[in-house]
Amino acid sequence: MSATSPSAPAPVLVLVPGVTGAPADGGAAFHVADATVPQLSVTDLVATRGDGIFETIGAFDGTPVNVGPHLARLARSAEMVDLPAPDLGVLADAVDAVIAAHEPVAELSVRVMYTRGIEGAGEPTCWIHARVSDDWSPYRAGMKVAALDRGLPTSAPATSPWLLAGAKTLSYAVNMAAVREAKRRGAADVLFVSSDGYALEGPTSTLLVRRGDTFLTTPVSAGVLAGTSVQTLFAWLREQQGLATGEELMTLDDVAASDGAWLLSSTRLAAPIAQLDDRELPTDPELTARFERVLKGGI
Amino acid sequence: MSATSPSAPAPVLVLVPGVTGAPADGGAAFHVADATVPQLSVTDLVATRGDGIFETIGAFDGTPVNVGPHLARLARSAEMVDLPAPDLGVLADAVDAVIAAHEPVAELSVRVMYTRGIEGAGEPTCWIHARVSDDWSPYRAGMKVAALDRGLPTSAPATSPWLLAGAKTLSYAVNMAAVREAKRRGAADVLFVSSDGYALEGPTSTLLVRRGDTFLTTPVSAGVLAGTSVQTLFAWLREQQGLATGEELMTLDDVAASDGAWLLSSTRLAAPIAQLDDRELPTDPELTARFERVLKGGI
Repeated sequence: MSATSPSAPAPVLVLVPGVTGAPADGGAAFHVADATVPQLSVTDLVATRGDGIFETIGAFDGTPVNVGPHLARLARSAEMVDLPAPDLGVLADAVDAVIAAHEPVAELSVRVMYTRGIEGAGEPTCWIHARVSDDWSPYRAGMKVAALDRGLPTSAPATSPWLLAGAKTLSYAVNMAAVREAKRRGAADVLFVSSDGYALEGPTSTLLVRRGDTFLTTPVSAGVLAGTSVQTLFAWLREQQGLATGEELMTLDDVAASDGAWLLSSTRLAAPIAQLDDRELPTDPELTARFERVLKGGI
Repeated sequence: MSATSPSAPAPVLVLVPGVTGAPADGGAAFHVADATVPQLSVTDLVATRGDGIFETIGAFDGTPVNVGPHLARLARSAEMVDLPAPDLGVLADAVDAVIAAHEPVAELSVRVMYTRGIEGAGEPTCWIHARVSDDWSPYRAGMKVAALDRGLPTSAPATSPWLLAGAKTLSYAVNMAAVREAKRRGAADVLFVSSDGYALEGPTSTLLVRRGDTFLTTPVSAGVLAGTSVQTLFAWLREQQGLATGEELMTLDDVAASDGAWLLSSTRLAAPIAQLDDRELPTDPELTARFERVLKGGI
């Protein structure tokens, strides 16, 4: 059974045995594989420990956006979890291959997955999976967001790097549980809050806040992922619009009192926070639509 | 490539399509499958989100220990992460089947894995995998343990259930990162500490502390797993030895000043903490050996 209807284009899977160098069997660094049959061992450490990292890249009308920044972040995550450095050239080629093998669609979600591999083998597992993006239009129209404690202080990355704040790991059970809790509260998504009271990020997104002509996001040092989408928007805001951008620790009150806030991701793009718990925020459909065009690579 | 030598008995895999009721295809609730070929989809949510739960059961000379308590805890974890209730009768039979299918060995590690299943399918995935246990003798002889911050306060389970403290999820990337950090510090394992300063548990084990004739563990309400091994030892200590047992929040100083401490798990059994960071603890090889016999089911 599949989430997509029978008429939807089939997902495409590319396995990447050469992610850290030439494959032991002398074969190709990557190859298309059958996405409809099992391809993973039950003893892969991603299945027994959630021990892996990933990136999700959006491709719009066949063109992937921010491949370089995504793969650079994958390399940083690998370093944070002591995985061998991935070959970013191989991965970039494999991303192109998976998109080329997929039927042309308007919005494609391309996941690059990199795990610690089969227990005892000492070799990572890597695959790239592309499928038609979910329909994000209800989110892009403006959503209610629940603020939920993430338990950790903003000092955690500095004091306790093993807590992996800021690494994009595949251990997302808490992120998924938080989204379920938000839905129980009648919200569509989550804004995580640090134990010292600062807005952080969403479970799968980066916070963007507007204050007058300045656009702000959470400092990476507070334990959030370094967002690729926010960097794209910041560059556009500064260079094309002459506006100011920056990183700042913001409380929930700061966010609620702002001139607009969004949760950004590579596939959902810019989802406006229309309501934060019980407080309404101003939305700007025109600006959101411009963000969307910029994030699709169509500056 | 495999962690075990070519002469080691082969692991056994049982798939359990009937974990939440009769399989849709009318087939058996569980069946032995080939453990040497891929059996998992790359879109199983355990592979894309670490979204699943598990139990590891020890079997000694072919007899599994604490199957009932392990499966009851799996059911509690399922509730905590909003997974459908597993059929514990089916799972108990499947555990027996996987052990029966494995070549007889002294110590077998039996993992019961239960994931949210393939994205969009709305049906969990379940398998049981049995393999010869690792050689835990160096740990059982006494080990150095590093105390590492887990970032969360002991109040987290009460205030923020979505943080899943106390659920045995497959999102163990932080647990694995903590063990790597401990090894960098010359230690074999970790004792996690809450942000409010209390000893919690190991990444894959439960804390047991001796103070005179009283044996103590961390309260489950502090956000630790409800240990099955500690309950076995507590029952033996009270009923066979007439000693006192209890739950108590202990600081690292309390643990270091105790008359002995162990990290307990179902396969490693009772591993004495011989050194906690730079402080040495008394060990009692005779008592540890008795614990080991009790935990193997041989009271």
